[in-house]
Amino acid sequence: MENSTIAEPGELATAATVALSRVRELKPRVHCITNEVASNYTANSLLAIGAIPSMTANPVEIADFVGVADSLLINLGTLGNSRIEAIEGATAVALERKLRWCLDPVFVERSATRLQFAKSLVEKSPDVIRANQQELCSLGLLQNSHPRSNEICIAMTAANDLIRQNGRLATVSNGHPLMAQVTATGCALGALVAAFLAVQEDAFTATVGALLVLGICGEIAADQCSGPGSFQNALLDNLYSIDKQTIEQRASLK
Amino acid sequence: MENSTIAEPGELATAATVALSRVRELKPRVHCITNEVASNYTANSLLAIGAIPSMTANPVEIADFVGVADSLLINLGTLGNSRIEAIEGATAVALERKLRWCLDPVFVERSATRLQFAKSLVEKSPDVIRANQQELCSLGLLQNSHPRSNEICIAMTAANDLIRQNGRLATVSNGHPLMAQVTATGCALGALVAAFLAVQEDAFTATVGALLVLGICGEIAADQCSGPGSFQNALLDNLYSIDKQTIEQRASLK
Amino acid sequence: MENSTIAEPGELATAATVALSRVRELKPRVHCITNEVASNYTANSLLAIGAIPSMTANPVEIADFVGVADSLLINLGTLGNSRIEAIEGATAVALERKLRWCLDPVFVERSATRLQFAKSLVEKSPDVIRANQQELCSLGLLQNSHPRSNEICIAMTAANDLIRQNGRLATVSNGHPLMAQVTATGCALGALVAAFLAVQEDAFTATVGALLVLGICGEIAADQCSGPGSFQNALLDNLYSIDKQTIEQRASLK
Repeated sequence: MENSTIAEPGELATAATVALSRVRELKPRVHCITNEVASNYTANSLLAIGAIPSMTANPVEIADFVGVADSLLINLGTLGNSRIEAIEGATAVALERKLRWCLDPVFVERSATRLQFAKSLVEKSPDVIRANQQELCSLGLLQNSHPRSNEICIAMTAANDLIRQNGRLATVSNGHPLMAQVTATGCALGALVAAFLAVQEDAFTATVGALLVLGICGEIAADQCSGPGSFQNALLDNLYSIDKQTIEQRASLK
Repeated sequence: MENSTIAEPGELATAATVALSRVRELKPRVHCITNEVASNYTANSLLAIGAIPSMTANPVEIADFVGVADSLLINLGTLGNSRIEAIEGATAVALERKLRWCLDPVFVERSATRLQFAKSLVEKSPDVIRANQQELCSLGLLQNSHPRSNEICIAMTAANDLIRQNGRLATVSNGHPLMAQVTATGCALGALVAAFLAVQEDAFTATVGALLVLGICGEIAADQCSGPGSFQNALLDNLYSIDKQTIEQRASLK
Repeated sequence: MENSTIAEPGELATAATVALSRVRELKPRVHCITNEVASNYTANSLLAIGAIPSMTANPVEIADFVGVADSLLINLGTLGNSRIEAIEGATAVALERKLRWCLDPVFVERSATRLQFAKSLVEKSPDVIRANQQELCSLGLLQNSHPRSNEICIAMTAANDLIRQNGRLATVSNGHPLMAQVTATGCALGALVAAFLAVQEDAFTATVGALLVLGICGEIAADQCSGPGSFQNALLDNLYSIDKQTIEQRASLK
C-alpha cells in the first residue's frame, strides 16, 4: 500500500482520552437508526459515555431528528421497509448538512436484498464503516481496488481490530471474548464511533479512540463479572467511569 | 393560582403505600404502546411492582388488548405510522370504556409531525401527562391558559418533580442523577403512573405515588450499584422489594 | 391416553446434557421471529448457551435468513402485519427445507385476530408448541381430539411443566417463581427449544432438555440474585456456565 503511515500509538491513545472528555463535556446528539435487538443497549452505551441518543426510525419524522443531530449511526440489523425508507431520508439530510456518519452493515452476507442496499449506502460515502471480515468481503471492501476503499475509514473488528484509511493503519488488541457472547456490543460500538466522530475532526483517530475505549472497558468488565449477563452491565458501568489514566495504561495499539 | 391547595405530604406518602399494595394485590393489566427502546424495561418495571403488562401496537388487535386492560400508557418515542394508527385505536377504546391513561410525549420538541400528533392526543384528555419542561412548553401546557391545563394532571419531571392538577400542587424531590444516565427509566415511570391509575381513583394522588416509589427506589439503587448498567437492575430489584416503611421514611415531598 | 409411555427420567436428563454439549460445539443458527420486548433477551439467551441467533422479521429478506438457519422460532407477541407476512414466508421455507420449528402463541386468548393466525400456524405442524394452559385451551390443544394434538410436541409451562407427544409424557419441576416476574424468560425458552431441536432428532427429548436447562439455571440464579433485575442477568450467566453434573444432580423430572 503506497504512502502507508502507521499512526503513532501513544498519540492515538492520548487522542482517545481527549475525544472521550469532549463527548462528556459537549454531550453530542447521536441519532441512531439501528436494529430492534440492539436499540436499548445502544442508547445506554451512548448515555454511559455522556452522549445524547435519539432512536426514531419513522420516515416521516427522521429529517427533523437528523436535522439537529451531531452525528449519525446507520445499522442494518433487523432491517425492514420502513427502516430502509428512514435510512434514505437520514443519509440525504446527512449529505446536505455534511453530518458525519458510521455504517454498520450487519449480516450483509446473509441476504442479497440487504447486501444490495448496503452497497448503495457505501456509494454515499459514510465516514466510517464498522464491520467484520465476512461483511467487508461481501461488500468488496477488502480489496483496495474498490473505488471507496481508501477514502472511507474502515474498522474491521475481530480479536484484533484493524483500522485503515488512506494508507494509515492501526491495530487495536484490547477487548475480551465475552464481548462476542452478548448481542449488541458490536452495534453499540458503531454508536460510540458516531459519538467520537461528533467531537473529533479526523475519522481515523475517532474510530481508533472508540475501539480503544470499548475494548478496554470490555477487559475490565470481564474481570468483574460472572458471565455474559453480568458482563453487559459491567461494560456500561465502565464506559461511565473509565478515566484517562486507565486508557493510557491499558491501550494495546500498534 | 386560585384555590391552590397544597396536598398534605404525609397523606400523599401514605396513599402511595396503599396504591402500591393494591397494585401488588390486584395485579392490574396495563397496556403499553411505547417505543422499542423502552419496551423491555417498561414491561419489567410493571412486573417488578406486581402489574401485568401487555405491549402490542398492532392496529388490528389493539382494541382486543385495550378492551380488557385496566389502564393504558401512550408513549410517543420512536413513533411510526403503524403505532400512530394503534394509538388512535387505543385511545378510542379508552374513551369508550372510560379507561384511564397516561400520555408521555417524548421529544415532541424535536419533530413538528410528532408535536401535532401529541396535541391531538392532549385534546382527548389523558388523565395524566408525564413530560419534561421542554416537552410541556412545546405543547403549550406550561401556560395556565391552555384549555386542558387544569383538568389534566401534569407531572413535570426534573431533579425535583412538580405535579399539578386543578390548583393542587406537589413537589417530589426523591430520585438520583443516575436515573437520567440510563434510557427507559422515564418511560417506565409513565407505565408505573398508569398502573397506579388502575387502582387509585384520584389521578393526582396516583401520579405523586408513582413518582415517589420510583424516586425512592432510584435513590436506594444508586447506593447499591457501580454505574448506570448495574443501576438499571438494582432499580428493578428495589421496585420488587420496596415496603411501606421505606416509602414513608424516605418520602421527600412538599 | 392409549399407549402412554412415561419416558425414563434419568435418560432424559442425560440427553439434555448431550444436547447442550452439541449446541455449544455445533453453534446452530437459530432464526427467531419474536416480539420486540423479548428480542434482546432471546438473542442473549441463545448466545449464552452457544447458539447463533438471527432476528430479522423483514418479509423481503426472511427467506434468505431462514434458508441458512438450523432451526426456527415463531413467537406471536407484539404481532404486526409485517411480522405476520414474515412468519408466513419463514414457515414456507421451513416446510420446504424440512427445518424444525417451535411456535410460541403468546396471548392468543386476548385477541381473535391473533388466535385465528395462530390456528393457521398449528395446521402447518410446528415440531413443538410452547404455551401456557390458557393459550393451549384457546387453540383447542388441551383436548386430545384436536387432529394435531398428538403429532406435535406440546410443552405446557407452569410451576410444573408438562411435555407430551404421541402418548409420551414428562413433567419438569425445575424453575423458580422469579422467572414469571421478568419478561422474556418464557420467550427465551422457545428459542432454547429451537436450539435444542437443531441438534437433537427427537422433538420430545429436545423440548424436555431445554426446559430442564432453563429451569435449573433459573433455580441457581434465584439463589444468587436480589430481585427480578439482577435475576435476569444471573440467568444468562448460568446458561453460559452450567455443566453436565449440575444438570444431572438437580433435574427434577418424572
